[in-house]
Amino acid sequence: MAFVNEDNITDLAQQRWNTARSPRLAELMTALVRHLHDFAREVRLTESEWAAAIEWLTATGQLSDDKRQEFILASDVLGLSMLVVQLNNRFSDKATPATVLGPFHIDDSPAAEFGDDMADGLPGTPLFITGTVTGTDGNPVPGAVLDVWQADAEGYYEAQLAEVDEARLRAKYRARDDGTYCVRTIAPRGYSIPMDGPVGDLIRNTGISHFRPAHVHFLLDEPGYATLITHLFQEGADYLDSDIVFGTKDALVVPFTEHEAGPTPDGGTIDRPYLHARFDFVLERLP
Amino acid sequence: MAFVNEDNITDLAQQRWNTARSPRLAELMTALVRHLHDFAREVRLTESEWAAAIEWLTATGQLSDDKRQEFILASDVLGLSMLVVQLNNRFSDKATPATVLGPFHIDDSPAAEFGDDMADGLPGTPLFITGTVTGTDGNPVPGAVLDVWQADAEGYYEAQLAEVDEARLRAKYRARDDGTYCVRTIAPRGYSIPMDGPVGDLIRNTGISHFRPAHVHFLLDEPGYATLITHLFQEGADYLDSDIVFGTKDALVVPFTEHEAGPTPDGGTIDRPYLHARFDFVLERLP
Repeated sequence: MAFVNEDNITDLAQQRWNTARSPRLAELMTALVRHLHDFAREVRLTESEWAAAIEWLTATGQLSDDKRQEFILASDVLGLSMLVVQLNNRFSDKATPATVLGPFHIDDSPAAEFGDDMADGLPGTPLFITGTVTGTDGNPVPGAVLDVWQADAEGYYEAQLAEVDEARLRAKYRARDDGTYCVRTIAPRGYSIPMDGPVGDLIRNTGISHFRPAHVHFLLDEPGYATLITHLFQEGADYLDSDIVFGTKDALVVPFTEHEAGPTPDGGTIDRPYLHARFDFVLERLP
Repeated sequence: MAFVNEDNITDLAQQRWNTARSPRLAELMTALVRHLHDFAREVRLTESEWAAAIEWLTATGQLSDDKRQEFILASDVLGLSMLVVQLNNRFSDKATPATVLGPFHIDDSPAAEFGDDMADGLPGTPLFITGTVTGTDGNPVPGAVLDVWQADAEGYYEAQLAEVDEARLRAKYRARDDGTYCVRTIAPRGYSIPMDGPVGDLIRNTGISHFRPAHVHFLLDEPGYATLITHLFQEGADYLDSDIVFGTKDALVVPFTEHEAGPTPDGGTIDRPYLHARFDFVLERLP
């Protein structure tokens, strides 16, 4: 290897990753080095900026744990998460579009049946979400599992709260044989991303809105269909057009219609006003 | 803001950083987003690769502490550190060239005078390093401070050892009024970068040599001169042409000449064979 200078260092730093045992790792690392060096050259990165970046990355890693993932948040606010979602979920126009997973999903939510209340007595406006799960061929997906999670009426997820004994505002609903499903919950609230870490420190130095519009998360992973990770957004909610993580899509914005006390979509009744959102999930058939 | 799609997301994700209160932050962040997105598009980053990157970054932050900086190591092996050194230290040909700081520098090393032994009884071959400190104008820099640090004869730095009570193989030498200096130490050994962390995990998947050639670090920060951070490398050492952090430069490779027991360069005598390296540091005059 030749000794480096400003002209040859990028070539030399790229070339040696071609010794990676996996061709894909070689491809990823050579491209990463090239783009990283191009960035540093273009902005003529100073030594103190480089040191600040090292500190920021270190703090971001150190704040992360099994409940909080500050690097996912960083990826989200840089638009990288949403770009990766789009590169890997090029569904046909008929299918429900994907959006970001976000940092708050928890595995192994409890099973729930048609109309079960995943809010389980938490304060908030009752919300029913009903519709069908079908493939792009129009056929229902019987027994499809909808893994649902959301923030509470204050804008907090279970993952953000200390000492939660059991699953809170998350459940795995099962569609009926005809593909119909019914989620009962409370209306979610739009919220600020966590602003007490390195990502918040960065955003605070800008005029960028640090809020997300009210939404409910869904994950559907059925055999024979592309995995769908998506949200439903409340039509008319604040921050719909300034979502800090770029997650909003037209096709995912649905009216949360107001209803008086009385019959509910699950066939029961309720003694308070409630909201009702209708949405039909359409899964991309795998070839 | 428009809702995003695969075509507009990079523009939208860049634009909003123009609201940064500092124009330089706006410049850095818009360029960073553009290069990051270009990378993800070019390699069509998969969701599992993205998740692996998040995990790798998190582990890298979590391994770092006040003695170990895994993100600096990552920057070093990607050639980013050396690129930043070169972008910011475009000295004239007369001046001693800069190289990487590395992750092992410790502040506040003890003061040392001409010929003091910073090895202080540690096992190894005695090494004298002598020469002058001048400006590019040829004038000596009287009393210039040379902050010196190095690995021991096993290849370990103080920062890598637990329970070190006092400064070990590091000192701040002062040049005499005529600019001459004399460092007494032991010969350093080439060494492997730490391979027990995320950077090692990555390198282990390639054929990249994970060693650095034997060297001694110097930092000179004199008023009126550009700060010089550099190494001296031992001529003929292993790994000179495969330095994993790209730090080697022709002008920094010097012979470590063998001498029999007898008179030493500091005017004393020694009862064992020793090595002697000569090097004149030339500092870039600030305008």
